[in-house]
Amino acid sequence: MKRIEGGITAAKGFTASGVHAGIRKSRKKRDLALVFSEKRANAAALYTTNLVKGAPLVVTKRHLADGFAQAIVVNSGNANTCNANGEEIAEKTAEIAANALGIAKEDVVIASTGVIGQPLSIEPFEKGVPLLASSLSKDGSPLAAEAIMTTDTVKKEIALSFSIGGKEVRLGGIAKGSGMIHPNMATMLVFLTTDCNISSEMLQKAISTDVSSSFNMVSVDGDTSTNDMVVLLANGLADNPEITAEGEDFETFMRALNTVTVSLCKALAADGEGATKFLECKAIGAPSKEAAKKAAKAVICSSLVKAAMFGSDANWGRVLCAVGYSGAEVDVSKIGVRFLSDKGSISVCEKGAGVPFSEEKAKEILLEKDITIEVFLGGGDYSATAWGSDLTYDYVKINGDYRT
Amino acid sequence: MKRIEGGITAAKGFTASGVHAGIRKSRKKRDLALVFSEKRANAAALYTTNLVKGAPLVVTKRHLADGFAQAIVVNSGNANTCNANGEEIAEKTAEIAANALGIAKEDVVIASTGVIGQPLSIEPFEKGVPLLASSLSKDGSPLAAEAIMTTDTVKKEIALSFSIGGKEVRLGGIAKGSGMIHPNMATMLVFLTTDCNISSEMLQKAISTDVSSSFNMVSVDGDTSTNDMVVLLANGLADNPEITAEGEDFETFMRALNTVTVSLCKALAADGEGATKFLECKAIGAPSKEAAKKAAKAVICSSLVKAAMFGSDANWGRVLCAVGYSGAEVDVSKIGVRFLSDKGSISVCEKGAGVPFSEEKAKEILLEKDITIEVFLGGGDYSATAWGSDLTYDYVKINGDYRT
Repeated sequence: MKRIEGGITAAKGFTASGVHAGIRKSRKKRDLALVFSEKRANAAALYTTNLVKGAPLVVTKRHLADGFAQAIVVNSGNANTCNANGEEIAEKTAEIAANALGIAKEDVVIASTGVIGQPLSIEPFEKGVPLLASSLSKDGSPLAAEAIMTTDTVKKEIALSFSIGGKEVRLGGIAKGSGMIHPNMATMLVFLTTDCNISSEMLQKAISTDVSSSFNMVSVDGDTSTNDMVVLLANGLADNPEITAEGEDFETFMRALNTVTVSLCKALAADGEGATKFLECKAIGAPSKEAAKKAAKAVICSSLVKAAMFGSDANWGRVLCAVGYSGAEVDVSKIGVRFLSDKGSISVCEKGAGVPFSEEKAKEILLEKDITIEVFLGGGDYSATAWGSDLTYDYVKINGDYRT
Repeated sequence: MKRIEGGITAAKGFTASGVHAGIRKSRKKRDLALVFSEKRANAAALYTTNLVKGAPLVVTKRHLADGFAQAIVVNSGNANTCNANGEEIAEKTAEIAANALGIAKEDVVIASTGVIGQPLSIEPFEKGVPLLASSLSKDGSPLAAEAIMTTDTVKKEIALSFSIGGKEVRLGGIAKGSGMIHPNMATMLVFLTTDCNISSEMLQKAISTDVSSSFNMVSVDGDTSTNDMVVLLANGLADNPEITAEGEDFETFMRALNTVTVSLCKALAADGEGATKFLECKAIGAPSKEAAKKAAKAVICSSLVKAAMFGSDANWGRVLCAVGYSGAEVDVSKIGVRFLSDKGSISVCEKGAGVPFSEEKAKEILLEKDITIEVFLGGGDYSATAWGSDLTYDYVKINGDYRT
């Protein structure tokens, strides 16, 4: 398995593009993206569990009911959520794309991200989608990745190449997400493409299984978005023997998928709104996978832990506090905590009580940008990892005046 | 029912005091409090649901097993949590107090608040408790209220007088809490005293019922503390006919109790760490009490809603988003949202979609310090209210360097 260039267009037969269509008035950033597969692809998707759902999710769910898709249209700058005519606009956009690409309207995936409840007109799509269709290219991944950004400060792209049944297979994707990140079943906008030959059923199984240890373990601010969506398209052009059941080939695909999704998770967390630090929490020695996940995620979600990390303060009591209210069944008298970074590691709590440690060393470790918090639960063989970011003045600043 | 002066010493037979015992090294603020009842009182308590529990909670639970107490010793500056000798110190403190007051050690309630996992010595208690015992006074409530403050900026005291069975009854209390506030079953430190004649069993029933609509509906930062405790002492000196069952007298007591607890809830929320605004969310028209509570609390807990309120931004999409992931069963197409303050009210969302509104008027309303967010669910007759504060630069500042 090796990293390759190309992002969402690394897989055979996929092209992409991104333009400024004018949805975003304030700055001239690309705000509309198109991803296209020359062959109709098997498709799998997951959506937010938020009861308030963006209109594009409703339309996409309808279009993907048959397990196939060939194009993805995504806009930033407006979530098309809680708008009276939201579904109408999403369906009309699919129709414009279908006409421009010569495909069926039902094979178009629609996604939106941005402010909730702002009026949205069809005009930018009427102008932008044909432009996108005529500028599709193998080099289009960074343009599409840029077009889906909102408060993101960096593009999130990744691609891998690996082998299945003697054939080279590629899997790549793009993602956006910086605030309102606390996925549950799906996350933010993530689009993945592969030329792997895999049935829609196994594709859905792969992504449904994967998110529980990838996107569902990321949190920036505890708010589950209304527009979260992960879409995975597989057009089969790698020509490997079709994966239709579990087995060695499926395992290989799952490993590649997890490498891609975890990489995107880390990129989402590191680019958390206002973040100065990337945080990783590993819960080790839990009595169950569920307990490990609860403990790791509670630590990553704690406002107090996040603020302590912003201040490079080895306040391990807050880590224990979060584990304590996480809902994981743990024996508090066995918990240990260790902080790690490129500057080394330091144990600060053992058997549920503090141990003497050098504050200078702890500060040196925590002043780094990438911090790992290891929590030893001493109660079993399960472990889990969660990702997040610190809580900063800039998070407050960004979200104090995002809309206006 | 009327407000009276006196806080925790308003009820007959209760005295209090507060001193600087040296637990808090950095500033010479009072850090040790004592509350005493001249008559052994019926006692009821609730504790944090966090699995990591402060040593004082473990000791207090043991002491209150018989339903009686006569004194409360509370320190700030150190949570006495995750300390190897924590229980030993708490028991020893009870013993010192019992000796100084001439009561049984098992009738002493012990509580602590401050940093978790910091070594604590018995010396400040050996010095401070006898000092407290000799300075107990009817005027001691503000001194005790000050002694239990940590990052609190204002003292929280309240007292009421009301009538039961023709007798005047008093109920009062003090509270502390500013950060790590997201109670579950109990909250922060809250001490209540009454001279009402009420059995331990009915006292426990009263407080257990009350918290679900009072302290459990407050959130400052989503972190459930390890040391939350509510203690209610009733010494019977009002001489009303003893309340031993539900009925009119119990209802009267419950109404007074709820007036006191809701007042303390509002004081806790308004003094949230770094807060510039007090937020109240009323969820109206829910299909069940549970749904109303979930919706109101999700809005109050949302980092994005809190940051929007800090910025006086009428970003109602974030309110809908929070209701959507709250777990409450609601029909999104019926939701309405209204913002209110002393400057008036404004409807910003009806039937799940935005309505045109004056941004200037919204800004004027949201620039006030006390904001109410009304969420109309249009699905039933139940409602609930939750309280919190905005998310500010100062919250991050306070928690970036609280420990060091």
